[in-house]
Amino acid sequence: MADSGATSLAGLAEIADIGRDRKRGGYSRHLFDDADRELREWFVERATRIGLGVERDRNGNLWAWWGAPGPNALVTGSHLDSVPGGGAFDGPLGVVSALDAVERLVRGGVRPDRPVAVVVFAEEEGSRFGFACLGSKLVAGQLSPERARGLTDASGRTLAEVAAGAGLDLAHLGRDDEALGRIGLFVELHVEQGRGLIHRDAPVGLAASILGHGRWRLTFHGQGNHAGATLMSDRRDPMVAASALVAGIPGVAAAYPGSRATVGRVTATPGGVNVIASSVDVMLDARAECDDTTRALVAAIGELAEQCAADQGCTAELVEESWTGGVRFDTGVSTALSGALGGVPALASGAGHDAGVLAASVPTAMLFVRNPTGISHAPEEFAEAADCAAGVDALEAVLRSQLGGER
Amino acid sequence: MADSGATSLAGLAEIADIGRDRKRGGYSRHLFDDADRELREWFVERATRIGLGVERDRNGNLWAWWGAPGPNALVTGSHLDSVPGGGAFDGPLGVVSALDAVERLVRGGVRPDRPVAVVVFAEEEGSRFGFACLGSKLVAGQLSPERARGLTDASGRTLAEVAAGAGLDLAHLGRDDEALGRIGLFVELHVEQGRGLIHRDAPVGLAASILGHGRWRLTFHGQGNHAGATLMSDRRDPMVAASALVAGIPGVAAAYPGSRATVGRVTATPGGVNVIASSVDVMLDARAECDDTTRALVAAIGELAEQCAADQGCTAELVEESWTGGVRFDTGVSTALSGALGGVPALASGAGHDAGVLAASVPTAMLFVRNPTGISHAPEEFAEAADCAAGVDALEAVLRSQLGGER
Repeated sequence: MADSGATSLAGLAEIADIGRDRKRGGYSRHLFDDADRELREWFVERATRIGLGVERDRNGNLWAWWGAPGPNALVTGSHLDSVPGGGAFDGPLGVVSALDAVERLVRGGVRPDRPVAVVVFAEEEGSRFGFACLGSKLVAGQLSPERARGLTDASGRTLAEVAAGAGLDLAHLGRDDEALGRIGLFVELHVEQGRGLIHRDAPVGLAASILGHGRWRLTFHGQGNHAGATLMSDRRDPMVAASALVAGIPGVAAAYPGSRATVGRVTATPGGVNVIASSVDVMLDARAECDDTTRALVAAIGELAEQCAADQGCTAELVEESWTGGVRFDTGVSTALSGALGGVPALASGAGHDAGVLAASVPTAMLFVRNPTGISHAPEEFAEAADCAAGVDALEAVLRSQLGGER
Repeated sequence: MADSGATSLAGLAEIADIGRDRKRGGYSRHLFDDADRELREWFVERATRIGLGVERDRNGNLWAWWGAPGPNALVTGSHLDSVPGGGAFDGPLGVVSALDAVERLVRGGVRPDRPVAVVVFAEEEGSRFGFACLGSKLVAGQLSPERARGLTDASGRTLAEVAAGAGLDLAHLGRDDEALGRIGLFVELHVEQGRGLIHRDAPVGLAASILGHGRWRLTFHGQGNHAGATLMSDRRDPMVAASALVAGIPGVAAAYPGSRATVGRVTATPGGVNVIASSVDVMLDARAECDDTTRALVAAIGELAEQCAADQGCTAELVEESWTGGVRFDTGVSTALSGALGGVPALASGAGHDAGVLAASVPTAMLFVRNPTGISHAPEEFAEAADCAAGVDALEAVLRSQLGGER
C-alpha cells in the first residue's frame, strides 16, 4: 500500500508545479490556458510511456488507449482542470490513479479482452467558460455546439476563438456518437468532496447518486451614480439589493432540507469604489437531493430577489445558465463493483462529475477516496497517501473484475 | 451663449471617441492606459494650437503655460481620467472649459500680468491604482512616493512599473515644491455631481466646501469549500457575512444624518461559481459633512462587520486605504470670485476634487456647472450646452478678474 501510494502521489508530484495560483493559493488550471496545455503534454507523455496511444477527440477531450480503440471499451479517468484557486486532488487524482491502475495491469501481463482507455475530460469545472462538464456534455450531446461556440470567458473571448486557437475544428464540435458508442463502462475515481467516508470510517466508497445542480444568474438593475454626491435617500443601489438577497439565501435554503445554495461571486458594473453600481450580477449555485426541491429553492430565491430589488427601487431578473438533473448510478454495475471490492460504502455526491453526465448515455460508476477534512475547491483539499493508494488498489481491482485475460 | 457653448462642447466632441467602454457604457480612461495616452496627446496638441507650452511634471501631471512658468500663477484645469464606465463631463469639462476660457483671453488680446496655466491632474478618480487624486496628492506631498510606487492595479502591476513605462523618473516622484510654489490661485471648473444647482435654479455655482471622504477595505475570512458537497450547516461562508454587512450599511448610515456610505465593488477569492469563497473584500467609500461623523460612521460599520462575520463563523478586518479630510474653501477668494460673477450660489460638494487637495497648500476655488439629473460617475452624466457655455463664460470672467492687462 505504501509503495503504490507513493506511485500515485508521484503522479501528482509530477504536475505539482503546473498552474499554481500565487494570488489565491492552490491551482488555477483552465481550458486551453498555459497550465492546461502543460498538463495535457504531461498526460500524453505519461500515457505514451506506459504504452498507450493518445487521441484528442472533436471536443478537446484526451483518450489514451490500451490497444486499438473500439466498442465495449472499459474507460476510466477524470479531469485535469481546476476551479480558480482549487486543490491538487479534484480531477487530477482520478487521472493519476487511472494511469497508475492501467500501468499495473500492463506491467502485470494482463491481456485485456476489450479495449481500455484513460480519459481526460475538458473544462469539468466550467471555470473558464462558465459551463461545468463542458467536454463530457459536448460528447454526450447535452450542450449544443452553437451554444458552446458562443460561451465567453472573463476577458470576453469566445470558446470558438479559444478552441480554434488550440487547433480544434469548430465544425466538428458537439455530440460524438463514435466516442460515446465505444464506452462499455466508465469508472471515474475522485477525491470525496464531503465527509461521508470519514463518518463511515472507510478509505474508499462508491457513488450511489449525484445531486441535481445548476447555475443561475441574478441581475439587479439600479441607477449608477456618484458615491459622494448622492444622498442615501436618493439612491437605487443594486449592490444593497443584491447583498440583501445573498445574506438571505441561507434562510431560504433552510426551508428545503438537504439543499445547498451558494453565491461564490458578485460582480458590480461598473465596479468603481467611488461609484454606486448601475447593475450587479449574483451567480447562484443550487442543489438538492430531489430536482423538484432544487427548482422550488431557486424559485423561492428568485422571489426573495424581486423583493430585495423592490425594497431598493431596483429590478431583478433570474436566468438559468446551466442545469444537470440528479443522477442515480446503475445499481447493477455498482453492486458488481462493490462485490469486487469486498463491499464498500455507497455515497450520495453533492458535487457534479463527468461520470454523472455520461450516466445518461452509458453504464457508469464512481469511486471516492476519503478526504480527511471534507474541504474541496480550496487549497486545503487533501487526501492521505494511504487512502490514495487504497483508491488505486480499488480501481485496479474494479478494472480487473471487468476484464478477461490472464493476470 | 449658444456659440461659446458650441465651442466648449466641440472640445468634448474631439475626445468623444477616446476610451469608450463598450461593456459598461460611458468611458473608462485610466492612468497611462491607451485612452489616457491619447487624451494627453490631444491636450498637448490643443494647448499648443492656442500658443501654450506644455510640460509634464515629475508626477505625471500636465501643465500648459501661457507665458513663462513662474510664481503667483493663475492656474485652472481638472482631470481627464474617469471612473470605470464613467460619464463624459466629470474631469474633461473642466479641462475643455479651461482651454476655451484661456483661448478667449489669448485671442481677446489680454496681456496677463502673471503666468497662466491649464493643468491636467493624473488619476483623479483613483480607478487604476485605487488612490484618488493621485497626481495632486503627490505634488502636494499628501502621498509619499514610497507608498505611491507600491500601489498596484487590478492586474498586479505596480505604479512604479507603469510609471517607468510611461517615462517618469521614479526617483523624482513626490512632493513638488517648485510646481506647488508657482500656484497663486487654482480654480477648477467641474460638472456638479448632485442637484444643488437644480434646486437653486442656477447654471453655475461656487464650491463652499468638500465633504471629508475616504476608502476602507473590509476583508471577511471564512473557509473555502465545495458549493455542492458542503452542507449549509457546515459552512463558514464569508460571502454571506459580507453581504449581511453591505445590506446593513444604509441602516447604519441613517443614524448619521447627511452621511454617505457606498460599496461599489465586492471581490470574492477564489471567485468560482461552484466554490464557497475563502475570503471576500468589500470596498467602502464613506463621507459626511463633519470628519468626526465619518470616523464614527466607519467605526460603526466596522462593528457591524465583526458581528456579521461572527454570525457566520468568520472574521473581519477593516483597513483604511485613503483618507481626505473635509475642506472649506478660502472664503475671501470665493467672495471675490462670486462678486466677479455678480453673485452665484455656494455649494457643499459631496465629491472629492484635486482642488480640495490643493486647498491645503494654496488659494483655491471651484466652479460648478449644473447637472440636470444630478447623475455622475455613470454614462448618463450630462450637462446642457447652454450651461456648459455659462461655465466657460464664468471661468473667463473669473480669470479676467484675477488678471491685469488690457481687455
